[in-house]
Amino acid sequence: MLNAKEIVDKMLKNDSFSSWLEINIIDLHEGYCKISLKVNESMLNGFSIAHGGISYSLADSALAFAANSYGKKAVSIETSISHIKKVNNHDTLIAETNELNKTNKTGLYSITITNQENLAVAYFKGTVYFSEKNWN
Amino acid sequence: MLNAKEIVDKMLKNDSFSSWLEINIIDLHEGYCKISLKVNESMLNGFSIAHGGISYSLADSALAFAANSYGKKAVSIETSISHIKKVNNHDTLIAETNELNKTNKTGLYSITITNQENLAVAYFKGTVYFSEKNWN
Amino acid sequence: MLNAKEIVDKMLKNDSFSSWLEINIIDLHEGYCKISLKVNESMLNGFSIAHGGISYSLADSALAFAANSYGKKAVSIETSISHIKKVNNHDTLIAETNELNKTNKTGLYSITITNQENLAVAYFKGTVYFSEKNWN
Amino acid sequence: MLNAKEIVDKMLKNDSFSSWLEINIIDLHEGYCKISLKVNESMLNGFSIAHGGISYSLADSALAFAANSYGKKAVSIETSISHIKKVNNHDTLIAETNELNKTNKTGLYSITITNQENLAVAYFKGTVYFSEKNWN
Repeated sequence: MLNAKEIVDKMLKNDSFSSWLEINIIDLHEGYCKISLKVNESMLNGFSIAHGGISYSLADSALAFAANSYGKKAVSIETSISHIKKVNNHDTLIAETNELNKTNKTGLYSITITNQENLAVAYFKGTVYFSEKNWN
Repeated sequence: MLNAKEIVDKMLKNDSFSSWLEINIIDLHEGYCKISLKVNESMLNGFSIAHGGISYSLADSALAFAANSYGKKAVSIETSISHIKKVNNHDTLIAETNELNKTNKTGLYSITITNQENLAVAYFKGTVYFSEKNWN
Repeated sequence: MLNAKEIVDKMLKNDSFSSWLEINIIDLHEGYCKISLKVNESMLNGFSIAHGGISYSLADSALAFAANSYGKKAVSIETSISHIKKVNNHDTLIAETNELNKTNKTGLYSITITNQENLAVAYFKGTVYFSEKNWN
Repeated sequence: MLNAKEIVDKMLKNDSFSSWLEINIIDLHEGYCKISLKVNESMLNGFSIAHGGISYSLADSALAFAANSYGKKAVSIETSISHIKKVNNHDTLIAETNELNKTNKTGLYSITITNQENLAVAYFKGTVYFSEKNWN
């Protein structure tokens, strides 16, 4: 069975959308990860702020990395996000996971997305189901 | 005050991320829209299926278009999505809004995301706040 | 293995809170149920309208009945509710389930709560996990 | 205008359902509250554990008290709860609010529900809309 780092390396390999987002891994261990991206012009909507899908995508990747890093393939089944602060061009977004619950079958994670001034821009909550399939 | 089509045209103009997603407007009127995109290789994750952020981004745009088309600037305050079916490369995703509630101040929308075979791939729910600012 | 009706009868037997709510089963089959209650004075908050917990409790029971009626013990893992209309004393609330997705392991249900005038008062969404344990 | 304590006293007066739940206020100030209840037999479902509606109702009351205590009448518009641990008869449930965001118009609160052993039994998230009406 692979360890947390090997699993996420495998997930990121050939992951075109994460490459496009230029997701950067800051920290990672079983059930936890902290990742970031830098907002660029292609991520903006018509108001010249980041599209809500950018924060969501970063948090959804963080959820996937944290949950899969235990070694079982994990599938997201329900996620929610509250956007509370505008995200501007050139902002750095950091998503950090907090595991609220884990059983053999399901996991619950809250993820706070902050900017480079350490201000929260969005709160994400995600539930995953852990399958029987191992990463290898 | 602008009409629904003029407002969404204005929103889409200079909207780099929607351009990148190649979002296509199928139908649109006050409080309603139906939009689509075609999944391409850049939207895939390491499992060779579409990243969850792609369905979310399409639905979040649909929410914004439907809610803003009344003429008041609307802000998304809480959204959730349940992913229920894998989305493959070259699939077409269609997001259609259903307005569940609207007051002067807030609106509630459910959005179903289907693929080219008319099978649901995700269910999205979004709440917006209507500001006092008019589109003009 | 028990059938849908036998399972829900067993769930309701000794269910003190559902007795207190005076929940009434209108219709029931595998993966579906429609139940009601009549609001009384004990269910009101300080504004003389029904406490939000009343609609939630009715919908949560509907979720449990619909999901358990397949024969596997099902556990609710994530639920949300949007309250959109005031509920008055003596109103009848009806909760009807709609199964959006079902796999061996998880199920997703939307539940609309209407009043005696067939107007929606709340929208509920719930995800369950199906355990290996049979009802018997 | 009334202060936080006066507002919540007014909310609780004639609040029949909170009386039935025997909700107890532990701490309260603007934008914050901590309340509890003791589970009794009438709150149990057919599995002899507390019905999910009990934790929800406690958290929903906490949301209402925290948000209304600023002086403007606040309305809950979207709430979600994840139940993660069984609640037994005679357990004490404590709900404590954490204000994640507040603007003139909307507020976002996370609420953790713990038992007498300080173990989390549920996580609640709620969004409110602040009306123009003052408490007086």
